[in-house]
Parts: sequence; C-alpha cells; structure tokens
Amino acid sequence: MSQNQFDAVSVVTKANVYFDGKCVSHSIVLADGTKKSVGVIMPAKLTFNTGAAEIMETVAGNCRVLLKGETEWKSYGEGQSFDVPANSSFEIEVSEPYHYICHFA
Amino acid sequence: MSQNQFDAVSVVTKANVYFDGKCVSHSIVLADGTKKSVGVIMPAKLTFNTGAAEIMETVAGNCRVLLKGETEWKSYGEGQSFDVPANSSFEIEVSEPYHYICHFA
Repeated sequence: MSQNQFDAVSVVTKANVYFDGKCVSHSIVLADGTKKSVGVIMPAKLTFNTGAAEIMETVAGNCRVLLKGETEWKSYGEGQSFDVPANSSFEIEVSEPYHYICHFA
Repeated sequence: MSQNQFDAVSVVTKANVYFDGKCVSHSIVLADGTKKSVGVIMPAKLTFNTGAAEIMETVAGNCRVLLKGETEWKSYGEGQSFDVPANSSFEIEVSEPYHYICHFA
C-alpha cells in the first residue's frame, strides 16, 4: 500500500485546483528538495497534460487510464502506480474519489 | 497575508473530501503535534458542523459566513480569519475557490 503520510515536509497552503475542482492537490517539498503533490480526483473523465514526466501512485480508490498513443485502458488500484512521459497526456476516469501521490520523475 | 507554506510538517496523503468534493482538505501535523488542515472550498453554499472549535484563516479568495445563532452574514478575504465555536455550525458561501487553513482551537 501507499504511504499514509509524508514527514518533515513543507506544504504549500494554497491548493492547486484543476477542472473546476474535479482535481485538487497540495504541493509538498521533501527535506531533500524533492517536489511532489498529494491530490484527489472526483468522479469524472479528464485529460491531463504533462510537462515533466510523472509517476501517479494510487493512495485510495481506483482509476482507468489511457496514455497518449496507447489504445488500451488500464486500471490501477491502491498501491499501484502508472508512469506518464514528459510532454504527453493521459485520460483518466474515476467513479469514486481517487486519491494519489504525484511524483515528478 | 497568510503564510504561503508550513515547514517541517507531516501531511496525510489521503485527502478529506466533503460535500461530493465541494470541499477538499489535507491534514497536517506540525512538529509540536498541533493538527491543522489546508483546504479549498469550490463555488457553493455549504453548512459545516464543528466538533472542536476552529479558526478558519483565509489563504486566498473570499467567503461569506453566517455563524449559527447569528443573523448577519460577514465577509472574509485573504489573511482574515473567523472563529467557530465547538459543537456549532456555520454556513459559508463562496463564488470562486476559497483557500483556507483550518486551525483547531
């Protein structure tokens, strides 16, 4: 399973709000300077564009994901992750709140 | 203005989701054990019930608030706070994402 909490981090108080609140995250910075975000996606089907490559780690809930250039939707549940290349995009569909940690690769 | 970030805290990875995602927060624990949450309320009119007394500090955005037992709506903007007694409730109305820090008194 995913970690329940991050310790000794800085957390930015203002949330990141995407798609009219269908996705909300808070940015954190680890002691070594690594940036991540912890967030949640509400029931919806959304398309995200990436700048930096990222790893989406499932904290709770399930999602279906279609990476750009692929033809097969894949499902991910608690503790599972999927990689998204830099300068790419992915479609994600969730039917209950999907909690994640976004690691920047 | 409010602080932009909290340092040296623990952050719970799973978000708190209220009102079908109209309010999302992440819980944090300060080095001294103090618990707070950082959150955002989407455009809506909501009624929150309190267990412990809390202080709602505005990080960004504006809100209108009606505390239980009061008759006058009051407005709060960035850097402003309002106190809510324990075992009480308040109505809050926001027209753009309202970012807050919730301090437990």
